[in-house]
Amino acid sequence: MLSKSQAKYIRSLAEQKYRKENNAYSVEGDKLAKEWLSSQTNIHMVVGLETWIRSNEALLCRHPEAGVVAVKPYELAAVSSLKAPNQVLLVAEMPAPPDALPDNEWCLALDTIQDPGNLGTIIRIADWFGMDHVVCSPDCADAFNPKVIQAAMGGHLRVQVHKADLPSLIAEVKMPVVAASLSGDNVYGMEALAAAVLLIGNESRGLSPDLMQLATHRVMIPRKGGAESLNAAVSAGILCALLMPRS
Amino acid sequence: MLSKSQAKYIRSLAEQKYRKENNAYSVEGDKLAKEWLSSQTNIHMVVGLETWIRSNEALLCRHPEAGVVAVKPYELAAVSSLKAPNQVLLVAEMPAPPDALPDNEWCLALDTIQDPGNLGTIIRIADWFGMDHVVCSPDCADAFNPKVIQAAMGGHLRVQVHKADLPSLIAEVKMPVVAASLSGDNVYGMEALAAAVLLIGNESRGLSPDLMQLATHRVMIPRKGGAESLNAAVSAGILCALLMPRS
Repeated sequence: MLSKSQAKYIRSLAEQKYRKENNAYSVEGDKLAKEWLSSQTNIHMVVGLETWIRSNEALLCRHPEAGVVAVKPYELAAVSSLKAPNQVLLVAEMPAPPDALPDNEWCLALDTIQDPGNLGTIIRIADWFGMDHVVCSPDCADAFNPKVIQAAMGGHLRVQVHKADLPSLIAEVKMPVVAASLSGDNVYGMEALAAAVLLIGNESRGLSPDLMQLATHRVMIPRKGGAESLNAAVSAGILCALLMPRS
Repeated sequence: MLSKSQAKYIRSLAEQKYRKENNAYSVEGDKLAKEWLSSQTNIHMVVGLETWIRSNEALLCRHPEAGVVAVKPYELAAVSSLKAPNQVLLVAEMPAPPDALPDNEWCLALDTIQDPGNLGTIIRIADWFGMDHVVCSPDCADAFNPKVIQAAMGGHLRVQVHKADLPSLIAEVKMPVVAASLSGDNVYGMEALAAAVLLIGNESRGLSPDLMQLATHRVMIPRKGGAESLNAAVSAGILCALLMPRS
């Protein structure tokens, strides 16, 4: 059974302020909880249905540091951020801030991505394509927001998510800097790039003009229909698939 | 000013049952409302802030069929599905059901896509790549759900969204039927296809085995990192960019 103060603590982690204060974030659902427990992450607390805890004893044994609390479905629902709570929620320790910024390898740099679902989907793309780093401008959605964690599907365990002032970061990198632009070069005519920073702009305003200026490659995905643009994550996925080395 | 019954009617359109009953759906926000008013769609009602109505008189004149109601911000907020209501909401007539299913042209077929944001993003991809048809299995999210309309960014005005039993549809088509599969052929080794149905599977279970069986081409986007899969919309976008004719 969860105490009132434990429940209050877990619910508070839905807010960035309390995640920061406690250096912790929450992860929900059977699949993600198993991924987190299989990783090296420090786990503070596991709150699960009794059946779930019984069937995952081996995984839980790997984390003697974690307090395990068996709860009833209504107790889980009361602390869950999900519409349909899924058996388990855990509280994990925030990773140490990444020490070095990406250098001579593919990475994504996000300018004011505000939708948590988009941010998570983009971290998942970075994870799929084997990138180690995603850099967020300070006004992006918080990467440890529960919706970002859900959408990234475990990407946080493999991709380091930085916060950085993008113009100064980009001004320093020695790699190609790629930006999608409707007036850019046709991406189908371009060679793959061994390393690059791919800039991804805000969902409605696109990339800020100062960042667009810093791009060394402006590329365009040819449009055949009437849509004004593609979703930020979809366009990032397409550019990774077309511009990253294929083997 | 909105009457109580008008407000109740508009709010009811957030539910599929009432959209069907009234053969109408709602569209919100400055950008989308302008797109809808610029189209041939029959508009039943426009509910906007006074300032918005004054600055869009020319567009509104094109729709003498529409009842225009000037409202205060709190009245708009009371009928809006958006967290931050954006000046205007309109009620549009549902399009007539598409008469012919796609034939010999690229289209997307969605198997149980349940997240409205994903569904809208996929309609936006079809719109970007100039497709006329998206076919949804009966258990997909409803295409006229307000969240789908928002995410599709006007795609509903150019792409016909069908509901159909996918196995019987797919069994009849004479085009290539493409499915993403982790054990498929490397997509980078494939030639573009002049026409095809691209099958897109459910967000967590993937494509149902009976549909996978009907695919003539099983393709794999090579994975370099640790992610188990890509988001359904991102993978659809990548496959369109790689497999559709480039000119």
